[in-house]
Amino acid sequence: MPNPTAAMLVIGDEILSGRTRDANMHFLAKALTGHGIELCECRVVRDDQNSIVAAVRALSEGFDHLFTSGGIGPTHDDITADAIAAAFGVPIDIRDDARAVLKAFYDGRGVEATPERLRMARIPEGATLIDNPISAAPGFSLNNVHVMAGVPAIFEAMVASVLPTITGGTPLLSQSLRVDLPEATIAGPLAGLAERFPDLSIGSYPFNMNGAFGANIVIRGHDGARLSAAMIELAGLFPGATG
Amino acid sequence: MPNPTAAMLVIGDEILSGRTRDANMHFLAKALTGHGIELCECRVVRDDQNSIVAAVRALSEGFDHLFTSGGIGPTHDDITADAIAAAFGVPIDIRDDARAVLKAFYDGRGVEATPERLRMARIPEGATLIDNPISAAPGFSLNNVHVMAGVPAIFEAMVASVLPTITGGTPLLSQSLRVDLPEATIAGPLAGLAERFPDLSIGSYPFNMNGAFGANIVIRGHDGARLSAAMIELAGLFPGATG
Repeated sequence: MPNPTAAMLVIGDEILSGRTRDANMHFLAKALTGHGIELCECRVVRDDQNSIVAAVRALSEGFDHLFTSGGIGPTHDDITADAIAAAFGVPIDIRDDARAVLKAFYDGRGVEATPERLRMARIPEGATLIDNPISAAPGFSLNNVHVMAGVPAIFEAMVASVLPTITGGTPLLSQSLRVDLPEATIAGPLAGLAERFPDLSIGSYPFNMNGAFGANIVIRGHDGARLSAAMIELAGLFPGATG
Repeated sequence: MPNPTAAMLVIGDEILSGRTRDANMHFLAKALTGHGIELCECRVVRDDQNSIVAAVRALSEGFDHLFTSGGIGPTHDDITADAIAAAFGVPIDIRDDARAVLKAFYDGRGVEATPERLRMARIPEGATLIDNPISAAPGFSLNNVHVMAGVPAIFEAMVASVLPTITGGTPLLSQSLRVDLPEATIAGPLAGLAERFPDLSIGSYPFNMNGAFGANIVIRGHDGARLSAAMIELAGLFPGATG
């Protein structure tokens, strides 16, 4: 059975304006790869209901799982929860379970549960809460969509909460070899190798170090024996030029 | 007239597997904002022809410009140029102008222009070359799509080549204010401010510093006078809590 597939949706004007550099995509990519889930596409859209709804529908239909990041705080520009509800045509309101989580957190700190704070308890009907050990306001999973905060520390904690609840696949194995030759020199032999191992993914990532061109060759696959066989052939292709 | 819009497409399995952290999106976002072009959406897809073609068609139709990054090297996994040609239904082959650029570069270094190297001279019919001052292999613009390398130093040089050829708009101005209050406390007054300035974009970006919650409020817009008026009101909303 092939591994489950996934997509990611990052929601935030601040990424697209260049104010903030997204960090969650790289974190999620590594976490999913380790869990045997294949991340196939990522999108970044603005804090705009129509854009979010369209992306949520396309990506939740196209892949086994969709992970979102951003837009679930208390301010007027946090519209992700409402957009997810709209995408699936379900009602959304302050939910008792989410309110209880927030109230317990605020009570413990002597802080009032104002209407603005309770806005973060707006959860679409039918969703399951995702634990937020840092600032309490929960994420949620609705159907195959997992909705998480944009602040990296909270996003990472939520991924840690939700990932064990998702059935993973065979972890993707990878091995790499550095070749100190220009990419154009290795391209021919490498294409031959890729043809002989169609079940593996063979990538070439060029670099330039102190003026010398080279490439890191990365072979990925689910079968360790095949991976080793391909690595042995790869090393034989460029004798004396591997590091 | 509203500012031109843009999208970005990052092509590369290595980003989605978590092997490499993309750097080009953040660079392009800042460059476009400075040039008065509004980056509205980014996508990351795999080295897969169907995925690239579908994204190129959707994003080049949906926005004034599309910028792509990755997949134009000499190896078998570099399929961007062919996918762009397929997306627009135009022929692609080694082109004399691109071959001349590569040959001059290789001749100057005493390197042979092998078939693998000349693969980087495959350019769709009707495209304009984008200069690559680092390793010669050109990018290209076809219709409203600007195709560039994934290696950050080359990507950045290509953006510098292509951006002056594109008509920009009014640069987006932004001002920000740090408020040392939890986001939930400022949410109400901030929503009121956003209603009074519907022509501006007002974003709230929470942070947690040494256990204390705060938020950076960023106001963006094209009219400096309106921006200043909103900033004065903003500062008055939270006296004594701004940094």
